Amino acid sequence: MNPTTLIQSQSSYSGKSVILRLEFNSESTKFGQVASLISENGGDIVAIDIISGNKSISVRDLTVNVSDTADIDRITEALGRTPDVKLVHVSDRTFLLHLGGKISITPKTPIQNRDDLSRVYTPDVARVCLAIKDDPQKAHTLTVKRNMVAVISDGSAVLGLGNIGPHPAMPVMEGKAMLFKQFADVDSFPICLDTQDTEEIIRTIKHIAPAFGGINLEDISSPRCFEIESRLRQELDIPVFHDDQHGTAVVLYAGLINALKIVGKDIHDLKVVVCGIGAAGIACSKILLAAGVKNLLGVDVEGILNANDEYANPMKQWYAANTNPDRVSGDLRDALRGADVFIGLSRGNLLNRDDIRTMAKDPIVFAMANPTPEISPEEIEDIAAVIATGRSDYPNQINNVLCFPGMFRGALDCRASDINEEMKLAAAEAIASIIKPDELNKHYIIPSVFNTDIVRSIRKQVIEAAIRTKVARRIPREFNSQN
Amino acid sequence: MNPTTLIQSQSSYSGKSVILRLEFNSESTKFGQVASLISENGGDIVAIDIISGNKSISVRDLTVNVSDTADIDRITEALGRTPDVKLVHVSDRTFLLHLGGKISITPKTPIQNRDDLSRVYTPDVARVCLAIKDDPQKAHTLTVKRNMVAVISDGSAVLGLGNIGPHPAMPVMEGKAMLFKQFADVDSFPICLDTQDTEEIIRTIKHIAPAFGGINLEDISSPRCFEIESRLRQELDIPVFHDDQHGTAVVLYAGLINALKIVGKDIHDLKVVVCGIGAAGIACSKILLAAGVKNLLGVDVEGILNANDEYANPMKQWYAANTNPDRVSGDLRDALRGADVFIGLSRGNLLNRDDIRTMAKDPIVFAMANPTPEISPEEIEDIAAVIATGRSDYPNQINNVLCFPGMFRGALDCRASDINEEMKLAAAEAIASIIKPDELNKHYIIPSVFNTDIVRSIRKQVIEAAIRTKVARRIPREFNSQN
Repeated sequence: MNPTTLIQSQSSYSGKSVILRLEFNSESTKFGQVASLISENGGDIVAIDIISGNKSISVRDLTVNVSDTADIDRITEALGRTPDVKLVHVSDRTFLLHLGGKISITPKTPIQNRDDLSRVYTPDVARVCLAIKDDPQKAHTLTVKRNMVAVISDGSAVLGLGNIGPHPAMPVMEGKAMLFKQFADVDSFPICLDTQDTEEIIRTIKHIAPAFGGINLEDISSPRCFEIESRLRQELDIPVFHDDQHGTAVVLYAGLINALKIVGKDIHDLKVVVCGIGAAGIACSKILLAAGVKNLLGVDVEGILNANDEYANPMKQWYAANTNPDRVSGDLRDALRGADVFIGLSRGNLLNRDDIRTMAKDPIVFAMANPTPEISPEEIEDIAAVIATGRSDYPNQINNVLCFPGMFRGALDCRASDINEEMKLAAAEAIASIIKPDELNKHYIIPSVFNTDIVRSIRKQVIEAAIRTKVARRIPREFNSQN
Repeated sequence: MNPTTLIQSQSSYSGKSVILRLEFNSESTKFGQVASLISENGGDIVAIDIISGNKSISVRDLTVNVSDTADIDRITEALGRTPDVKLVHVSDRTFLLHLGGKISITPKTPIQNRDDLSRVYTPDVARVCLAIKDDPQKAHTLTVKRNMVAVISDGSAVLGLGNIGPHPAMPVMEGKAMLFKQFADVDSFPICLDTQDTEEIIRTIKHIAPAFGGINLEDISSPRCFEIESRLRQELDIPVFHDDQHGTAVVLYAGLINALKIVGKDIHDLKVVVCGIGAAGIACSKILLAAGVKNLLGVDVEGILNANDEYANPMKQWYAANTNPDRVSGDLRDALRGADVFIGLSRGNLLNRDDIRTMAKDPIVFAMANPTPEISPEEIEDIAAVIATGRSDYPNQINNVLCFPGMFRGALDCRASDINEEMKLAAAEAIASIIKPDELNKHYIIPSVFNTDIVRSIRKQVIEAAIRTKVARRIPREFNSQN
């Protein structure tokens, strides 16, 4: 681990903690002086590591917490003015956490002697190979397939960063692999593809599928993501789940279930406006239709999508044909008038307070554009019945980390061949049910991602839905009595 | 973990330990009686796990060591004759070890709060993504690429089992991933491809390469393995190493270096016969040519390969053109006459004692066919100077587990763009050097795979060779002074 590779320019720093490597003359400078200087300029020294030192020169790493980045600048300037103290570099904890990647591969048992070696490798492993050859279903019990998900991206639509390509996308996929393991004990491996050709992606994923019990597609741009997911669902016998679509949709619907309890409205009677008909917007619309919403309007750059019009993008064509039963036309403002629910997956600051005033009584606003919501929650707090965003610094964050760990935990445990619409609805209901009636309020419709009941709850309801819809190829023991 | 899925028919059992699940009436049967019965029939009870029990019925798992499989049959028969004792099943430790696969994915740091979550995942991970986008080389420090090798097979030539396909091949690749981690702290992920088309394999591996710092090809049949490896070496900037070829070649050459010390012969003066011109035979021949062998004869079903003849297989054509300087023709026996070294990678019982007698003084015999060597070591122990095989139950096992962990440890640590011939020769010399002059004897020319000095020794010499041949893209600190 060579810390010199981690030097970040101070201007790019955005964390709350830095590591300062200092070299100072310990004869002329006392450490106390250095420490005081840091404290006076807003830094809190929380750890000290002595890197090297002799009688005159001492090199130390100081971990320093600060409240904002301006403190860092003040500290480094002050240190720069101090004679006999050299600031070797400033390291950033986020980058340090990424050194060498964020996951490792661990053997489940140690290989301590020749007997172990012969069991896990040649020659005795041959009997296990032959058992799988005789009964291919045994791959689900005798290989990592039982608990392994591929997290696959082509780097074409990573976070809000756009098409950054496969290598830069890796840290996101590795992060996802960490979350899978930590939240649901699902093993997952990050793969970033060095191609953005739809057919090549489909072929590649099919070729590498034998190791995996499920495929989590991630950060693949629209509209290629639809074709890739639907073809793979047809052509593979393991679940394929594009998280940007369905993870968002499941959590959105979970939030809506609870929001409707607050306003006392029935899902079948709602008028819902979805703004931004990309991958997530389409998936959110699909889950709402499956859940019983009748009057759904999609709004994109073309205005309200409408079966009277023609669209080049086949997904928009599909969308227009399956929503907007009254064939209403117009723009976002026309759509919003009298709507019960606004679902934004578009861009920041599209709406103002007056727009929300035109909605029906007790409007529900899901303003999920990132990082800036379609309308700031502060602006409408007094007139909206429920507000949710994609951000962690407001209440009610629609975060797909709530869904994917439990969804795959359930799918793997019942050896599901697919993740279907019923399983997605079940996952949403499971998430919504975490919040008990006496806890529910307009600021708490969605549980925290750190709530440890979530995965168990999703798993149970997802497995039940999989059994009911006959995509479960194994009935876990505790579900036996129910069937 | 459902042990009932693991019932093996007793006839297929070949391990040295079994787990017997017994259900017995604890009112009428004392456990001591059961234990005596097992002991009397050759079993040694080494562990007892109580699975369930009430006042009358007790279910226990007994782990029992036996010296051979006949003991198992005797024990199960005796238990069958005992009233009130029911043998629920016999589990096999090798299969138990494979339950759910042999490796797992581990996050390097826990995600305990929102601050951790934002660093390893969104939003703060975006800064790491952008740093890699700005400088693609940072993928080697900020992602798993730094320490991750793909172990890739198409299941076409697995162990001695032949073309068993991708799912049945997984346990071998998982075993290899365990060995990588245990012996050299290299992370590796097993991928079995659901295609055996050469171009599809090449394309797929190129597409998934961004996550990896190296590619270990495994158990891919000849001659496709040559094209796949050489194309990938050209088209990727990370090392690609077909272990069946080069792992075997490196360890063979390591053994030969030490065998030559015993007989006091110089490698340049040898006459060497290689029998079996498949993937491993060609790789062994190449390393010997690179090491200085002049008079090398390859023998296959066609007899001695010879530049006067034409061969359909382009690798044999190449082989004939680059060996056999005197254009000798004939069969294996003709080749052997006067040879100093026999290297067998063909099939069992090809040779007899009289054949070895026709070789030069102090013949060196590497009879590596598996599971039956070309000639049994017992048959020639008194007339051969040195004998090595591929088996663990004779001295001098040529086992490629000796090579690949250290080879990739070295390649990753210097961020090598290739594993070239010089690095292979260096690895062989490193392995040979583990055995000190006073330890060397005809029964000890190759160290044990559990010798902990091996990886360190290979790593050092491989990195030095990589630096020397300019394929190292990073000089580890301890090698700096040397350059």
